[in-house]
Amino acid sequence: MVEKKEVYGHVLNIRRLGRVGFIVLRTFDGIEQVTVKRNIVGEDIWKTFTELGFEYFIRVKGEYVTSSIAKLGHEIIAEELEVIAPSKPLPIDLSDKVEAEFPTRIKYRYLDIRRPKVRAIFRVRSTLLKAAREYFYKKGFVELNFPIIIATATEGGANLFKVTYFDKIAYLAQSAQLYKQSAIPAFGKVFTIGPSFRAEKSRTRKHLTEFWQIDVEKALTTPDELMEIQFRLVKYIYEKIHEENENELKILNVKLEVPEYYHKLSYEEALEVIKRKGFDIQWGDDFGSDEERALCNEFDVPFFVTEFPEQVVAFYYKLKDEDPRMAHRIDMYGPGQYGVEWSSGGLREHDPKRLRERMIAKGLNPESFSWYLDMFEYGFPPHGGFGIGVERLLQTILQLEKIHEAALYPRTPDILEP
Amino acid sequence: MVEKKEVYGHVLNIRRLGRVGFIVLRTFDGIEQVTVKRNIVGEDIWKTFTELGFEYFIRVKGEYVTSSIAKLGHEIIAEELEVIAPSKPLPIDLSDKVEAEFPTRIKYRYLDIRRPKVRAIFRVRSTLLKAAREYFYKKGFVELNFPIIIATATEGGANLFKVTYFDKIAYLAQSAQLYKQSAIPAFGKVFTIGPSFRAEKSRTRKHLTEFWQIDVEKALTTPDELMEIQFRLVKYIYEKIHEENENELKILNVKLEVPEYYHKLSYEEALEVIKRKGFDIQWGDDFGSDEERALCNEFDVPFFVTEFPEQVVAFYYKLKDEDPRMAHRIDMYGPGQYGVEWSSGGLREHDPKRLRERMIAKGLNPESFSWYLDMFEYGFPPHGGFGIGVERLLQTILQLEKIHEAALYPRTPDILEP
Repeated sequence: MVEKKEVYGHVLNIRRLGRVGFIVLRTFDGIEQVTVKRNIVGEDIWKTFTELGFEYFIRVKGEYVTSSIAKLGHEIIAEELEVIAPSKPLPIDLSDKVEAEFPTRIKYRYLDIRRPKVRAIFRVRSTLLKAAREYFYKKGFVELNFPIIIATATEGGANLFKVTYFDKIAYLAQSAQLYKQSAIPAFGKVFTIGPSFRAEKSRTRKHLTEFWQIDVEKALTTPDELMEIQFRLVKYIYEKIHEENENELKILNVKLEVPEYYHKLSYEEALEVIKRKGFDIQWGDDFGSDEERALCNEFDVPFFVTEFPEQVVAFYYKLKDEDPRMAHRIDMYGPGQYGVEWSSGGLREHDPKRLRERMIAKGLNPESFSWYLDMFEYGFPPHGGFGIGVERLLQTILQLEKIHEAALYPRTPDILEP
Repeated sequence: MVEKKEVYGHVLNIRRLGRVGFIVLRTFDGIEQVTVKRNIVGEDIWKTFTELGFEYFIRVKGEYVTSSIAKLGHEIIAEELEVIAPSKPLPIDLSDKVEAEFPTRIKYRYLDIRRPKVRAIFRVRSTLLKAAREYFYKKGFVELNFPIIIATATEGGANLFKVTYFDKIAYLAQSAQLYKQSAIPAFGKVFTIGPSFRAEKSRTRKHLTEFWQIDVEKALTTPDELMEIQFRLVKYIYEKIHEENENELKILNVKLEVPEYYHKLSYEEALEVIKRKGFDIQWGDDFGSDEERALCNEFDVPFFVTEFPEQVVAFYYKLKDEDPRMAHRIDMYGPGQYGVEWSSGGLREHDPKRLRERMIAKGLNPESFSWYLDMFEYGFPPHGGFGIGVERLLQTILQLEKIHEAALYPRTPDILEP
């Protein structure tokens, strides 16, 4: 029996040898090879074939045969060939062979995303998001959506985008922090995956002004449990990508190593590592981008840095009872050359008096946080949580040099379009 | 064997009869009953018990016994009782018996969400989101995230929130429309669930300024397929809620009827129904809120209205070849008293020349949409899609009088906090 196949796709490559033509077609799912024989298709279709150009979107129907010549092992011998939508000459090359400069790629991002490598990144991103949610659903976490437009600065004044909200001034949420905490007395364990915004003029390989974050908060938790949840989550994500994106990993030339364990070091131990790498860093400093990079390079599995000096943590972190110079903040890092800070988290202060003191000590006005402070007056459970940057996690997993590759339409201080 | 149980929860109710006390505890998962006997717990714990108030967050441990008196059929006979976090007297009642006025509930939303009815709404919302994504994953749709901060007005000028983006003016995306279309040549079928923003001063039962939308786009589709996808999706969501939220539906007193079929009527037929209900509406008018309400009340299963006059549709809808006064727009509505417009969608125009003409006809400046118009020059597949409002779907499913109930922290022209 003869098998017929009909496919739609974009013309990726065309070749002609006398009265025979070959088309490589990029379909939505993969690649198809098409052979066009002048004596089979007749003059009209042959003319259509000879006028094809790159990225024409066409329909082809014909016999689907195995072939020892075709690279894919099978091909379609065209009987019908129809142009659904022609294409102008392309301003950038869409094969993965010659990659345009980054600014040009971003200018034509709506074309750039057709490239197999770029498509592969976003198919993996889709798996990452799906796996993260699956993990939390299975553990009984409730998924909530927190507001993006907020009246007060979430974590203190700076780095916020202003929104004109009718006749008021509002801001874009830097994180779900205050709101996810507010859901703790009602739900006990919650998560959200949504956009966050930072108006930082950082032009680094790891900063976006608009990014997605996996935000998690849990009542009655411990630092050890928070690390365990994060490690299990990340491991699950790696496993799912390994299972579901074999083809994409091949296109991206990434050998995925599912992490089997993690390291844990104190802030002081991390400082030592960074100093040993030749950086001039003092106790009480937060890690800069270069220092962080040096630190990540020391590890080949994910690692946590625990307990930071109180001066580098936000007001809502709980200080250690035994040593109030230190706070229960825990950061998770991706390992290796493409490693980066994946998450920040830890235990939260839930005593409204101490929260008020911490705000004042950090130069914040408690009046701006009145509803937030008020909520802790009504039987508020001890709790903790974390926020993992989706693009940062993807950057490490897929070994992307720049975080911009991990966002479909990246936003930076310089990029606002398309 | 004696079974011991340890629970954490908020004090929902307290009663005392001589040397015996009773506590109803709201845990994160449900309700527990606790009996405190003075002769078992001793004087210190008895004193702690007598000083308890509503919403104290406590830990209780003791024998877990079946009981013919306890409403739940079992109770904990306290041996340990510890206050983890006390509570000030509550500004609003947190039982479902006496419901505070809506503005008061919103002012104290972080307390209001502890109420069983409110918790139930958001557990169902979590199921809705999970089910929607499951549906699209199974069908091979790729999940993407589109930008929130955009340089140009998405659907034409009005109703946009302005953002100060460093030294530029930007806007909050009204929908993922232009961006989800841009992903069509690369991925063929895509979806996203994310926040959208409309700066409309509408103070109705169905408007929020910040809301979540299920946005879907598919290459090579037809009006019939778009209706079929939406109906199957909604049916799947109903089924999952029916399966996973029995308890929540009981708390909310909602009898869920999974829809087994849908109705389909033309714009003209819908006009007839609305006129019959006594409204003065003309051919070429869009439906107002009251008219829509009257229409929904006529149906007891979801229904579609198909083919709208071109003057009421956005520029990106495809006009009918046979009758260019009409556009391929399809709206889906929820049925009954709590019914509302759930979605808008349809076939899109993918010819850049015609798109430009449509923009000009609608009073838009094609220059502002240059990247969007440009992308259609490069082999752009015919396509269509839709966007379903998450809160609107939830409003109908859970029979909520106001859409504000379906958002954890609703945003309206008047509500920006908490």
